[in-house]
Amino acid sequence: MTRTILVVNGPNLNRLGKREPAIYGTVTLPWIIERLRHLAAEHGVTLLDFQSNHEGALIDFLQEQGEQAAGVIINPGALTHYSLALRDALAALAVPIIEVHLSNIYAREPFRHQSVTAAVCRGQITGLGWRGYELALRALLDILTEEDSRAKEERT
Amino acid sequence: MTRTILVVNGPNLNRLGKREPAIYGTVTLPWIIERLRHLAAEHGVTLLDFQSNHEGALIDFLQEQGEQAAGVIINPGALTHYSLALRDALAALAVPIIEVHLSNIYAREPFRHQSVTAAVCRGQITGLGWRGYELALRALLDILTEEDSRAKEERT
Amino acid sequence: MTRTILVVNGPNLNRLGKREPAIYGTVTLPWIIERLRHLAAEHGVTLLDFQSNHEGALIDFLQEQGEQAAGVIINPGALTHYSLALRDALAALAVPIIEVHLSNIYAREPFRHQSVTAAVCRGQITGLGWRGYELALRALLDILTEEDSRAKEERT
Amino acid sequence: MTRTILVVNGPNLNRLGKREPAIYGTVTLPWIIERLRHLAAEHGVTLLDFQSNHEGALIDFLQEQGEQAAGVIINPGALTHYSLALRDALAALAVPIIEVHLSNIYAREPFRHQSVTAAVCRGQITGLGWRGYELALRALLDILTEEDSRAKEERT
Amino acid sequence: MTRTILVVNGPNLNRLGKREPAIYGTVTLPWIIERLRHLAAEHGVTLLDFQSNHEGALIDFLQEQGEQAAGVIINPGALTHYSLALRDALAALAVPIIEVHLSNIYAREPFRHQSVTAAVCRGQITGLGWRGYELALRALLDILTEEDSRAKEERT
Amino acid sequence: MTRTILVVNGPNLNRLGKREPAIYGTVTLPWIIERLRHLAAEHGVTLLDFQSNHEGALIDFLQEQGEQAAGVIINPGALTHYSLALRDALAALAVPIIEVHLSNIYAREPFRHQSVTAAVCRGQITGLGWRGYELALRALLDILTEEDSRAKEERT
Amino acid sequence: MTRTILVVNGPNLNRLGKREPAIYGTVTLPWIIERLRHLAAEHGVTLLDFQSNHEGALIDFLQEQGEQAAGVIINPGALTHYSLALRDALAALAVPIIEVHLSNIYAREPFRHQSVTAAVCRGQITGLGWRGYELALRALLDILTEEDSRAKEERT
Amino acid sequence: MTRTILVVNGPNLNRLGKREPAIYGTVTLPWIIERLRHLAAEHGVTLLDFQSNHEGALIDFLQEQGEQAAGVIINPGALTHYSLALRDALAALAVPIIEVHLSNIYAREPFRHQSVTAAVCRGQITGLGWRGYELALRALLDILTEEDSRAKEERT
Amino acid sequence: MTRTILVVNGPNLNRLGKREPAIYGTVTLPWIIERLRHLAAEHGVTLLDFQSNHEGALIDFLQEQGEQAAGVIINPGALTHYSLALRDALAALAVPIIEVHLSNIYAREPFRHQSVTAAVCRGQITGLGWRGYELALRALLDILTEEDSRAKEERT
Amino acid sequence: MTRTILVVNGPNLNRLGKREPAIYGTVTLPWIIERLRHLAAEHGVTLLDFQSNHEGALIDFLQEQGEQAAGVIINPGALTHYSLALRDALAALAVPIIEVHLSNIYAREPFRHQSVTAAVCRGQITGLGWRGYELALRALLDILTEEDSRAKEERT
Amino acid sequence: MTRTILVVNGPNLNRLGKREPAIYGTVTLPWIIERLRHLAAEHGVTLLDFQSNHEGALIDFLQEQGEQAAGVIINPGALTHYSLALRDALAALAVPIIEVHLSNIYAREPFRHQSVTAAVCRGQITGLGWRGYELALRALLDILTEEDSRAKEERT
Amino acid sequence: MTRTILVVNGPNLNRLGKREPAIYGTVTLPWIIERLRHLAAEHGVTLLDFQSNHEGALIDFLQEQGEQAAGVIINPGALTHYSLALRDALAALAVPIIEVHLSNIYAREPFRHQSVTAAVCRGQITGLGWRGYELALRALLDILTEEDSRAKEERT
Repeated sequence: MTRTILVVNGPNLNRLGKREPAIYGTVTLPWIIERLRHLAAEHGVTLLDFQSNHEGALIDFLQEQGEQAAGVIINPGALTHYSLALRDALAALAVPIIEVHLSNIYAREPFRHQSVTAAVCRGQITGLGWRGYELALRALLDILTEEDSRAKEERT
Repeated sequence: MTRTILVVNGPNLNRLGKREPAIYGTVTLPWIIERLRHLAAEHGVTLLDFQSNHEGALIDFLQEQGEQAAGVIINPGALTHYSLALRDALAALAVPIIEVHLSNIYAREPFRHQSVTAAVCRGQITGLGWRGYELALRALLDILTEEDSRAKEERT
Repeated sequence: MTRTILVVNGPNLNRLGKREPAIYGTVTLPWIIERLRHLAAEHGVTLLDFQSNHEGALIDFLQEQGEQAAGVIINPGALTHYSLALRDALAALAVPIIEVHLSNIYAREPFRHQSVTAAVCRGQITGLGWRGYELALRALLDILTEEDSRAKEERT
Repeated sequence: MTRTILVVNGPNLNRLGKREPAIYGTVTLPWIIERLRHLAAEHGVTLLDFQSNHEGALIDFLQEQGEQAAGVIINPGALTHYSLALRDALAALAVPIIEVHLSNIYAREPFRHQSVTAAVCRGQITGLGWRGYELALRALLDILTEEDSRAKEERT
Repeated sequence: MTRTILVVNGPNLNRLGKREPAIYGTVTLPWIIERLRHLAAEHGVTLLDFQSNHEGALIDFLQEQGEQAAGVIINPGALTHYSLALRDALAALAVPIIEVHLSNIYAREPFRHQSVTAAVCRGQITGLGWRGYELALRALLDILTEEDSRAKEERT
Repeated sequence: MTRTILVVNGPNLNRLGKREPAIYGTVTLPWIIERLRHLAAEHGVTLLDFQSNHEGALIDFLQEQGEQAAGVIINPGALTHYSLALRDALAALAVPIIEVHLSNIYAREPFRHQSVTAAVCRGQITGLGWRGYELALRALLDILTEEDSRAKEERT
Repeated sequence: MTRTILVVNGPNLNRLGKREPAIYGTVTLPWIIERLRHLAAEHGVTLLDFQSNHEGALIDFLQEQGEQAAGVIINPGALTHYSLALRDALAALAVPIIEVHLSNIYAREPFRHQSVTAAVCRGQITGLGWRGYELALRALLDILTEEDSRAKEERT
Repeated sequence: MTRTILVVNGPNLNRLGKREPAIYGTVTLPWIIERLRHLAAEHGVTLLDFQSNHEGALIDFLQEQGEQAAGVIINPGALTHYSLALRDALAALAVPIIEVHLSNIYAREPFRHQSVTAAVCRGQITGLGWRGYELALRALLDILTEEDSRAKEERT
Repeated sequence: MTRTILVVNGPNLNRLGKREPAIYGTVTLPWIIERLRHLAAEHGVTLLDFQSNHEGALIDFLQEQGEQAAGVIINPGALTHYSLALRDALAALAVPIIEVHLSNIYAREPFRHQSVTAAVCRGQITGLGWRGYELALRALLDILTEEDSRAKEERT
Repeated sequence: MTRTILVVNGPNLNRLGKREPAIYGTVTLPWIIERLRHLAAEHGVTLLDFQSNHEGALIDFLQEQGEQAAGVIINPGALTHYSLALRDALAALAVPIIEVHLSNIYAREPFRHQSVTAAVCRGQITGLGWRGYELALRALLDILTEEDSRAKEERT
Repeated sequence: MTRTILVVNGPNLNRLGKREPAIYGTVTLPWIIERLRHLAAEHGVTLLDFQSNHEGALIDFLQEQGEQAAGVIINPGALTHYSLALRDALAALAVPIIEVHLSNIYAREPFRHQSVTAAVCRGQITGLGWRGYELALRALLDILTEEDSRAKEERT
Repeated sequence: MTRTILVVNGPNLNRLGKREPAIYGTVTLPWIIERLRHLAAEHGVTLLDFQSNHEGALIDFLQEQGEQAAGVIINPGALTHYSLALRDALAALAVPIIEVHLSNIYAREPFRHQSVTAAVCRGQITGLGWRGYELALRALLDILTEEDSRAKEERT
């Protein structure tokens, strides 16, 4: 059975490429997802992506898909800064999670400097545009490979 | 007509028993609701329960059912700490409301020490696990009995 | 083609007239919308109104209708004080937005003194009850007229 | 006897149209007052306007004219953010007061986000330029009309 | 040997029923203790109650009686908000402790929103009047029963 | 029956005249009490004075003597800045209370600038040395006289 | 040559008896000044009173009259809480100054709890209504008498 | 036409040499102004000086004289720390402004460490006594010379 | 006459060795006192020790014994962090005082990082267990010896 | 001429693999650098690495090598949280900079949650161990390739 | 023996003229030093200048040269905002010190508004570019002249 | 092989005896080190001392010598209050560390009340002058002896 990595995007990220291109760039979310899907496929991994403007829908998705997934890439959008409910949903997952932000949130308004979700993730990548997603996927694939080889060693 | 007490649970509480059992224990939400339903039935009261990961759905439910209910038990989950919209929905109800938390929120992360909803409830019970719900129900039943006898006195 | 102005109302505003009348007055939301619709019609403008208790639904609506609208009147309810996701959705719109609050939020609880959405709106009207909506609509109509005449001048 | 509405402007507003037009626009205070006077006259109301760079002079004026006035429109300029003495002078008046700001104070420096006077006014209008004064006047005229009809009803 | 549960009340609680009845109700402390004693007796448990206006006396009592007790119900009164010495005395006990407050401390002055003792208790019950004590006792009795049956299981 | 005014002094005030005379002056507490007793006697009022270094003892005294007293002068010493339990004991009294401080607490260390008890007193006198007590007594005597004459008027 | 004591009143105190009588009482400023003048005269002291809504005028007055005065009673009104310029003017005087507030500023809005002028005064009297002024005058007269006798001693 | 430089002094600076000489030194304001006038004259520049204890008068002066002046030296006294109205008046001027403080405000009370006016000035000189004014004048003269030569260059 | 050094221990320190040994170690207070008594005796100094859970009793003791003592070692327990009354009692003593804490208070909960008493002591020793007391005693003995030799020199 | 990418490591990173492996892992800095060097070489890029415990040496290095470099990867260690001088040195560089942290700084002590350098970098990667460096290098290589192709396009 | 004045520049000031010219101007540090050296020479004073990116080197220099110098001009660069060690080194010097900043630090990022070194200097000059150094030198030369003449007077 | 104890002193401590003797006393650092060396020699322990004004040099030294040392005494000077890099270097050592301060840092400027290094040390000794070092050495010697005897016990 192939493994699945979730790519979860929060509020307003569906508008990527249309909304404030000076800050967020001109590529669209489908374009990014397509790129990621190819990269995942090369490594024999399925990508399941989900975008919603609804905090509750994001939590529903993580609850339903998070358990059987092998890893999560999440860009919670502005929910990053206040959604403690999303934080709890992420904290409940045992798999590695990487938080991604397109823009450098530390170079923007003060309220964007704090992430309530980062503390329950494995790591965070910010400011590198759509490449941030790709790097996060590479990191997850590496982590999975490493875990596999460690598991193999233990079995022998 | 029998009276109804609402039991409302916020984000991630549907995962009770599965999520972080070290903090939240191993009983499940249906198990708790069942216990409460029996206790309510013994006192001739109906229980209407609702869980959602959606802040908006919780507010919809409180608006639709809150007016004709006799009391509310609510565990807003992580929304406790920031959902001013939920606070407003609770503040609009005239019936007694008791806020319940399974864990002792005052012994956890600093952001969990503040409740924006507690101020518009009658009281709060924290840290007593699933028993907290039962105690809340007992308190509501007592309050209703007391109000009944007071009403009877006034009529005579 | 007639132009459209959006009138967006956040959590609990559907309960207007029923909820805490001492603070919010006794008129209902449909009554206000009706009044606004008449005023708009007199100026050849269509009104599209939307109310939801769901932050996500408000964002969905703004994304779908915001681009082709000529202006927005929004009362985000309690989301005013924390919904950074709603702020981002508003910031993505190019049209003029006016934030309205029925009560004087500066004369109430401290947490209501801060608006995270006001900074991305053109202006804010508070404390003038249902009249605040009417004044906001008048302001938007004036802004549109002005923009029209400026556009006409430029063309000639 | 005709009723009087006071239009009070604080420090630096006499320089309107000359000072930082990027923020405050190019219309002048006399131009605004003239517009307001016409609108007031149409409703049979007299306008008494006053501008001063002196906190004390503004308080003197409010004490002397405030009692017999029917309403007050005030733009306290930068005094908005610290003049507790002006706040006390406004709080002492029984008539409806509307605070107006030309620019959107919530989109400027942090020290402009707080108003010490707003809490003792009926409402506040910000960010709508000179139109803010006109809307404030319309709101006051509506409030007076409403009070009149209520008074009439009570008498009958 | 019967087990003992301590009921400890801090400063000013001896004045219950006489002091600010609008906030604290009209029942007296002896009345509450009497009720609790009956309930405890029904479960074969002894109640040892203690009230003092002296922080030091409360600590002395907890040190002397806390070790051989089976549980503690404590309402530290205003000491709740600053007595770190009381906190240390409670933290030193191994038995379950439940903090009780008659009024909803989260709906009162800001300084009452913080409890320095709650973090070292099992749980907290606030805002439910004298019933809060009864619920706390029920919770403790349940916890004891549960511990007993667990101990029995382990022995077999 | 003569009326009684309580003069209550908190921690370290028994050392007056010996402790840090540069700040607190050289007169002793007995000397002050004696002066007050004479002044009280001239107005037919008895003085009951109490000093303790124990917060609890001060509360005990206020509970036992406060109800039948006609007024209270209190210098809570350093308890002024943190004893919420003392505040509650004072808040429970219906008679006028005046807080006195020998030194100007607002010209000393920052932690002395805040009084948690002042808010539940009628007024506060600081920085006037032993004269502060005398002025407080005069103020209380005047208040009593005024209340008497008001009571007399009402009876006639 | 008779000595002079200044009685200085800040913004809005000229409205005493007319403005918010629930907070400030019904006596007027002239009535208080008259009372003080009599008391001063009995002790052979002249009273020079001044009221202004202008911070600058208060400073002018203190500069012109402060040096040759024997003492100052000042109620800075709302300037108490922010006028550092007034503070500097008071700090420049060598004579004893007593700050007076009619209401108990510590029992009102948080912004009234802080006095920027108190630290440069000898003492402060709050919450005792017009009596506060009388007590302040008595205190000043006592201080003057004491200084006189000390001066006499030194000369002999 | 000779150019004019404004030298503006705020509250209490007219008392220089008399007020707290330990902090502010013993030279007087007229002495400083005289020195500056000579230095200015040597460079063919007129000096226009103004001192007032009135925030409003300072703003009036800056509005009336600021536009045709070539530069401003201002010591706002204690207004430095709170007069946002003065800040706005300074911000409206296009000419270079230098803020001067006689004492080292960073070595005094914490409230003097913050300047609300410095941000809208070209620079600030503090702690160098009357020399600070002279240095400010020299800096302004240099800036004017530089601007002149730059203007000449551009013309050629 | 032999000199006396006071060893004062605050709340819960009587439970040393029994309470939270992971933090405070397993030695008891009597064992420490005994050790200190021997060390003191070797230097011809008497040790007077006192422990209380009562803030007031600690102050009483310091007032009664502090004046004739040669030095004080104090571990105020949790009172360290809030007992301003204890601070005042210590500040009133002229002899050298050393504050001791068994655990490293800077490596524990944030509320333990601040000592309100340290500022009025000569020094502080933390984190070195029972050795901290011994080191404090050595330091005091050294200080006394030094003072003696200095006194002797001055006499000759 | 081959391009150079700088890899700069701050205080204590030379101890990687030896220091607190539970937090920082067991790989060493030379091992990481070696890996990066290979990856760089594959893309025809030279790697210049530098580690120092000296803030000043890090700034010297950035000044000397930063200008001719094509990009910078920096892990400032604990300097991240306070070295404004390092921030200024980074801000002065025109090339893309990526900040890397081995551990998830947002899941550690609060003082590690703030980065004073992140705001002047292009992006930040945290919590992904030594992989973070590799991902940063990949990102820089991609940025360089992209810039190259953009430059080529412009030339044609 | 000629007197020496130290001119000390902190991190990144060696890059002056190359780094962020929009903020810091285009003149270089050697150019400034040269100008200062000439001015100093005209007054018979030697200039000793030192720049380092190392906090420690700056302290070493001040310790070694500070004692025999006649005055210090220092621009600590970003160390201004946190180097308490540099502050201590400056505080240890008896000679007059003037802090200089090229840009107006009060008009930049909030972290630049606070200087930890200014409080131990004689004064501070900010925002006047390279002229700030020249003004600082003039001020020091004046102070030295003044001290000389005062010393001469005392000798006669 | 004899064991080594490191004595590390931070910025400005080389100036001891010369710098601000009112605060730091008149003994010099070499004098203290000499005393410590003798005491250490008596116990068969070598002392290795190091002083630097360079944060980086202190970290270098701790990295190079810390591992093979038996304990560390450190007075980080002003680095105590901000050097998180030094904190990390200390945290990486397994041996006991004692922080020493000559003066009572809790009785000085507020910025000296916080130590960022204390939390990773075993304990802290402040305010006891050069004796603090001696006491720290005694404590370390005792800890070593204790560890030795514990190790011996375990071996038998």
